[in-house]
Amino acid sequence: VYTLGVNLKHDKEKALKTGIDLLRLKGYNKIGVAEICKATGMPKGVFYNTFGSKEDFLIESVIAYGVSSRKAYQKFIADTDGGERAIDRLRSLYKKILVAHARMNYRGCLVCNTMAELGAENPILREVTTKQLNLNLKVIEPVVKQAQKDGDITNATSAKKITELLHLTLVGVSIRAKGLQDVTEGQETMKLLINSLSP
Amino acid sequence: VYTLGVNLKHDKEKALKTGIDLLRLKGYNKIGVAEICKATGMPKGVFYNTFGSKEDFLIESVIAYGVSSRKAYQKFIADTDGGERAIDRLRSLYKKILVAHARMNYRGCLVCNTMAELGAENPILREVTTKQLNLNLKVIEPVVKQAQKDGDITNATSAKKITELLHLTLVGVSIRAKGLQDVTEGQETMKLLINSLSP
Repeated sequence: VYTLGVNLKHDKEKALKTGIDLLRLKGYNKIGVAEICKATGMPKGVFYNTFGSKEDFLIESVIAYGVSSRKAYQKFIADTDGGERAIDRLRSLYKKILVAHARMNYRGCLVCNTMAELGAENPILREVTTKQLNLNLKVIEPVVKQAQKDGDITNATSAKKITELLHLTLVGVSIRAKGLQDVTEGQETMKLLINSLSP
Repeated sequence: VYTLGVNLKHDKEKALKTGIDLLRLKGYNKIGVAEICKATGMPKGVFYNTFGSKEDFLIESVIAYGVSSRKAYQKFIADTDGGERAIDRLRSLYKKILVAHARMNYRGCLVCNTMAELGAENPILREVTTKQLNLNLKVIEPVVKQAQKDGDITNATSAKKITELLHLTLVGVSIRAKGLQDVTEGQETMKLLINSLSP
């Protein structure tokens, strides 16, 4: 029983990883359970036993994607040499997120893609994606607050509002980069925004 | 023949208007031609004769939506009393766009929704949506340039770059508003951005 449990957990994680890539590329409504099963190698019966429904699979994917995004953000904003300024860690964060977008061929963020695709019609996914976006903002806000203390970002507005501005601009920039299939303009836009926030 | 032509044109415009609302609400991959025909009252045969395919219908919808967006932008940024400052016309533009989003129950912009939904996979829609977004930016850029001349927006960067920053932040803010089903935060974020761009 123990071994079976380990395998199920392994298969579930593998299915989520492959499913997330597929969802980011094609969107939720383009793909069916048959296609997810084909891509993940999970038989249909196991899929329904594991996830319940296609929508539940999306919900688990969005949450898993949110968790892994925040791990990446933590890495990107880490103070690696013990003396890096918060403002430079923010610059590094947005530069590296956009580099990661390009590396994934502009599939975009699963949280924002899903919010854009389903948010108008589906209250459950609206709530799930909003919660994940809020959690992402919470990771960045302390760095913005530190940059304010350092005198590198204006104190005229709260760290929360500035974090929202930074991250929502990233959302728009990422969709634009998907259209352009290029991130050069987006990198400049994020730099311009961060410079505009100096006191 | 002439009368028939007029009716066809009328029916096509009517179908596009209804189709745009449906596409904005549900996204492209959620809906089929049967649903579009049911909503627009256009028989399937006439739909295919008029538009060619579901994808061609989307393309015509995106272009028609772009044209009507720019008409709205022109109205929102108009100098109604002959003495309004460019910076106030920009504030008014973004305030009114967000009010319009709320009024349409956060369906979002069809250009950006389509770029987000199909941009990673579909090169034709990527090009069509990018072109429409570029045309939208062109309407706003002269007002940004005027605000720079008036000394209300920094001259450190080109009007083109600042317009991109403003409008891509709006794109992110609009998706966030779809999740929150509220535009209060978005209005504040756009105000914060415009204030940050003062010289």
